[in-house]
Amino acid sequence: MHVLIIGAAGMIGRKFAENIVRNPFENGARVSALTLADVVAPTVPSGFSGPATTLTVDLTQTGAAENLLSGRPDIIFHLAAIVSGEAEADFEKGYRVNFDGTRALFETIRHANQQEGWRPRVVYASSNAVYGGDFPDVIPDDYILTPQTSYGTQKAIGELLLADYTRRGFFDGIGLRLPTICVRPGKPNRAASGFFSGIIREPLVGLDAVLPVPDSTRHWMTSPRSAVQFLRHAAILDPARVGDRPNLTMPALSVTVGEQIEALRSVAGEKAVAHIRREPDPVIARIVAGWARAFDPQRALALGFVAETNFEDIIRAHIDDELGGHIA
Amino acid sequence: MHVLIIGAAGMIGRKFAENIVRNPFENGARVSALTLADVVAPTVPSGFSGPATTLTVDLTQTGAAENLLSGRPDIIFHLAAIVSGEAEADFEKGYRVNFDGTRALFETIRHANQQEGWRPRVVYASSNAVYGGDFPDVIPDDYILTPQTSYGTQKAIGELLLADYTRRGFFDGIGLRLPTICVRPGKPNRAASGFFSGIIREPLVGLDAVLPVPDSTRHWMTSPRSAVQFLRHAAILDPARVGDRPNLTMPALSVTVGEQIEALRSVAGEKAVAHIRREPDPVIARIVAGWARAFDPQRALALGFVAETNFEDIIRAHIDDELGGHIA
Repeated sequence: MHVLIIGAAGMIGRKFAENIVRNPFENGARVSALTLADVVAPTVPSGFSGPATTLTVDLTQTGAAENLLSGRPDIIFHLAAIVSGEAEADFEKGYRVNFDGTRALFETIRHANQQEGWRPRVVYASSNAVYGGDFPDVIPDDYILTPQTSYGTQKAIGELLLADYTRRGFFDGIGLRLPTICVRPGKPNRAASGFFSGIIREPLVGLDAVLPVPDSTRHWMTSPRSAVQFLRHAAILDPARVGDRPNLTMPALSVTVGEQIEALRSVAGEKAVAHIRREPDPVIARIVAGWARAFDPQRALALGFVAETNFEDIIRAHIDDELGGHIA
Repeated sequence: MHVLIIGAAGMIGRKFAENIVRNPFENGARVSALTLADVVAPTVPSGFSGPATTLTVDLTQTGAAENLLSGRPDIIFHLAAIVSGEAEADFEKGYRVNFDGTRALFETIRHANQQEGWRPRVVYASSNAVYGGDFPDVIPDDYILTPQTSYGTQKAIGELLLADYTRRGFFDGIGLRLPTICVRPGKPNRAASGFFSGIIREPLVGLDAVLPVPDSTRHWMTSPRSAVQFLRHAAILDPARVGDRPNLTMPALSVTVGEQIEALRSVAGEKAVAHIRREPDPVIARIVAGWARAFDPQRALALGFVAETNFEDIIRAHIDDELGGHIA
């Protein structure tokens, strides 16, 4: 199976590429060829012996999508996007990449489909940012998408295009509304959501972390490991089971910051918890207050998507995957 | 007040233009200048003494939106669209007009807003075709938009863009999800929904009309008069009351074909009803079965939008407005 990952240099893209070259998909299919694309150079996972192509490419450039798709992959994972903060700060860049880039990709597939009958699976990374405004505490699968950011708008438009192109038979699309990923590895960044990971990741290596919101703040999150598993599962899902609504809210854990901290205490002790410094930031608190707190993702659960059900497991996944099983 | 109507040669566009040049808006504002645009030449309503411009223009052509907006109207009514059947038959044309055309309009306003601070009201005609799939008998305001046609997809994307451009302050947008308009004047056409009007309009002038679906078929409809009133009301609505979800499902009447026929009997007698010929058409029945049957448009009702509550009134509106008050 020839797999194309667009956004392969990102955190999830890298983990996913490493995962699928090592482990066959659950239906037994193996990665026979790999194309990795991103705006910065992606890395081919070590140990992959099949043909691999890396492309440093911007989907919004003329001909970029044609180039990307020239190998006619069987499955395309479209994970590339300008993130929320940047799409809000730079209106034109956000629409160019997240909207025009996605459309260029879909249009190029459509043309090839109509000319050659090629009909790949397309797995599209959407986001819970498609929800906004005055939503209920627990959002059901049939709740309206009224994003309150340009990023969320662009993702919601991508979902609509994916559904229409799939209904038309141009490709076989599945959209995954990904939750916040926690614990996100790497350095602290300036994303408003960064502290959800920071208050776990930094204390586990003996560093301080700032908590800018009240302990009662509730959010919807899952591990990088689960996110990789969502993509793996979407790759092999039977379209007949998905039906005429191919965009799915992924399962995750609805947890408060206070519950995150209790889990940290239970896994890593009081010493770790002592590294959390409470420094209320009203700007971040206001942004986070607009985010969805919980979902009832019945469709995804019925289709076999699974996520952690307690935060200790999310911390342990991070310790296993990023810290070699050891706490500082 | 300078009013621009895009799609001014259409049925609703013409009725609306005639209405607003005669009657001041409910806040007392009058039309001081009128720009009418469509792909076929629009007609300036007789009796309008202010400056009027008519433009025969295709929004998808380079420079068309700039040309259209050069007079910097105070309110823009965007009613232009490729209809459902044509957007389904011609994928590229539907996206070009309903998607690229709408985006070109919005982008041109954005550029002018950022350069000059011009910030018009934009009233956007969406459609109940944004709903599709397995929806409830009565669809609430917060139900997900999962269109099952390319037309519905394009309208849903327009709604998302309208909301984001409004949130950003580029213009002040209101989107109206219009119900099926009944009784639609004019000749019978080949639209799948045509019979809802045909079984009333034709018998009222002594002509036969074909009914291709069972009497139990339920649908959501309102008169052209109500549609004009929706646009008038959207023109003067206080944005603060609309909030962060500017797209609204309009009120209408949920009625079965059997109830339509009973209303025809009560208004025009057995002689009219005898002109209805039942010729079941499984293709049309299947299309219509996928359409929304009823809504609970609480937000629009709370904002003061009103529609007929019985079908006799819809028939009488047609007799008054199109037949000079007389039945054949």
